[in-house]
Amino acid sequence: MGTTLVVNPGSSSKKYALYKDGQPVSSWRYERGIGTQLCVQTGGSAAVCEPLTEAAFATATEDVLAAADEILKNDAVPTKLDTAVIRVVAPGTEFQTHQKITGVFVRLLRAQETVAPLHIPSVTKEIDSLQSIRPELPLFAASDSAFHATMSDHTRLYSIDASIAKEHDIYRFGYHGLSVASIVRRVHSVTGVDPKRMIVAHIGSGCSVTAVKDGQSVDTTMGFAPGSGLLMGSRGGDIDAGALLELMRVLHLTPTEAQMYLQTQTGLLALFGESDLRSLLDGYANDDRNAKAALYRFTLGIQHAIARSVITLGGCEMIVLTATAMERSPTLRELVVSGLSPLGVAINPDRNDALIGKEGVISTRGSECKVVVMRTDEMGEMYHVGQRLRASAG
Amino acid sequence: MGTTLVVNPGSSSKKYALYKDGQPVSSWRYERGIGTQLCVQTGGSAAVCEPLTEAAFATATEDVLAAADEILKNDAVPTKLDTAVIRVVAPGTEFQTHQKITGVFVRLLRAQETVAPLHIPSVTKEIDSLQSIRPELPLFAASDSAFHATMSDHTRLYSIDASIAKEHDIYRFGYHGLSVASIVRRVHSVTGVDPKRMIVAHIGSGCSVTAVKDGQSVDTTMGFAPGSGLLMGSRGGDIDAGALLELMRVLHLTPTEAQMYLQTQTGLLALFGESDLRSLLDGYANDDRNAKAALYRFTLGIQHAIARSVITLGGCEMIVLTATAMERSPTLRELVVSGLSPLGVAINPDRNDALIGKEGVISTRGSECKVVVMRTDEMGEMYHVGQRLRASAG
Repeated sequence: MGTTLVVNPGSSSKKYALYKDGQPVSSWRYERGIGTQLCVQTGGSAAVCEPLTEAAFATATEDVLAAADEILKNDAVPTKLDTAVIRVVAPGTEFQTHQKITGVFVRLLRAQETVAPLHIPSVTKEIDSLQSIRPELPLFAASDSAFHATMSDHTRLYSIDASIAKEHDIYRFGYHGLSVASIVRRVHSVTGVDPKRMIVAHIGSGCSVTAVKDGQSVDTTMGFAPGSGLLMGSRGGDIDAGALLELMRVLHLTPTEAQMYLQTQTGLLALFGESDLRSLLDGYANDDRNAKAALYRFTLGIQHAIARSVITLGGCEMIVLTATAMERSPTLRELVVSGLSPLGVAINPDRNDALIGKEGVISTRGSECKVVVMRTDEMGEMYHVGQRLRASAG
Repeated sequence: MGTTLVVNPGSSSKKYALYKDGQPVSSWRYERGIGTQLCVQTGGSAAVCEPLTEAAFATATEDVLAAADEILKNDAVPTKLDTAVIRVVAPGTEFQTHQKITGVFVRLLRAQETVAPLHIPSVTKEIDSLQSIRPELPLFAASDSAFHATMSDHTRLYSIDASIAKEHDIYRFGYHGLSVASIVRRVHSVTGVDPKRMIVAHIGSGCSVTAVKDGQSVDTTMGFAPGSGLLMGSRGGDIDAGALLELMRVLHLTPTEAQMYLQTQTGLLALFGESDLRSLLDGYANDDRNAKAALYRFTLGIQHAIARSVITLGGCEMIVLTATAMERSPTLRELVVSGLSPLGVAINPDRNDALIGKEGVISTRGSECKVVVMRTDEMGEMYHVGQRLRASAG
């Protein structure tokens, strides 16, 4: 048991958390864009947020490391930071294991920047900052795909020539693995069971549905890159190859341009005009026609993916709804679950309405497959990954 | 009631049928590739097949027209051919209605050749032949997408910018519409009911699953082009945008080259080494490991699509299995249906084994959703389309 800084860098937000002896001590959340702010949470108290300048976003790593030092120094038994873990979202078999970050790792990661332009640059930048500020601090990569390494060839392989796939490392890697792993780790403590066949719907700014059998991933909606599968804020996961190729042909897009277009200009943004699910839910509450249509389609996609998972698993004991949108919005949960009646799933509306920011069951007693709302704990999962790697490196 | 020649041109086969007063009188099937042959069926008798030279494939239109003339001339009351109908498989709102073939239609169709290189060239070539041999014969297009024109915006629209979609006509058109329409037309005569919520799985050399509500298409697996959705012989329907873009980047493929690659080099061909479902089923029967893996994946995709349709429809009264593979292979049917138990569907193995080349129910009495095997009748549907168009053209 030691002291770990967990780092979760994104394009529009950066999250940091300090863990000491297995417990989160303090966390920092930098948000950029609409409502640029820094929220700090210490111990069990509520987060304190304040507006942020662009310059403060740039010095986040340095400031957080200094703040962490200060906290650890002032403890009853003063300590120092001994581990850092960073979340890595990147296509590639190389990146599908949790590992120590080395020079080779960083070079390989940088080479993939064009493939996942929304995810990788913020990670390599953060690694650079951490390593230049604290060159002596052991730094580990928590892979967001590692949890899906258990997927069989049926799911992992695209139906393209095997030698091309191998040479160019084109496989379905899957993402949101840290989130799903955190659900698997915590599900027994929340529900009292370890379901044999469980479906995890992670609906946040990224969205995915994963089929979990005996605690292992057997299928997930995201594939090679984190843009595929479900419709998301600015990502149109559901665009098929024929339509994409026609779009590239008529708009004269290169693969890299098309990738950027799909990741930033499609999804809810294209259907509704805004990428934020909260705006969509506000529009729905105000009976806005476009919002209702986009939300219907968004939830239909999630329902389709859950049904797909039920087939893959050969049944279902539990559906876990997690990540921001699912944790906070009873409306979204009701819309999703109400469409699952052909699968023998039924919602208890009172219990659903009562659960906001809390965990628990929202399905009826008679529901064959239980529906549970859980907090995702990616940061906690990364802490555990760091602990395991440090122990095995030690 | 008149005399109609129905023409169904493909890249490796061409089918013709002569209808007189609502009944098929004679049919011709030209097959190219392995076992190049011509099969002729007259009246209710069995088809007579003979080997074919490449030259005979080229003069098919002329030969069939001459043979049709001969048949009609020798009738008790001699008649002449008065209508021809050709199947058109092409992306585009323009092509999503059945219509008379005009010069404008042919020009628009030719402009789409690069978008559907496997389907359009054989159609334009056949139209040219028919019009040059019989310029006076009224020629109609039976659209393979028309049946899906009832799909709502939720299904028809990709989540891309609406103005781009409109300007470049990029929508989910769907295909196999003539086949599904023939099922809707005949389902009552086979089963005694018109199911409110029906799912049609068309599994032949092309594969699709369509959700039908009150006789109308509400969703289907194929999208803009006929290559999307399910895994097929040489088409890898399930490849997501991220993987496709990476493939194009590393192989330096243009959109047109990528389209051709996806349509001819992926699917079962890439997974198993052969594109013919019959070879795959033979391999399965011989316990071939690769065949078993590819077949598992092929059937899993069909099951996923059926589950998706059940969600879209909010339930299911009937699943219809149709087209060559489903009509002929009890093994394939059993593999597909056995994975649907989470949807309350169960197969009666004896009835399934007994149904080869025949129509009927193969689900158990207790099955909530009935499973029915039916012959597809695309040719008959095209005949009806021709009749309606000729009547409305006055």
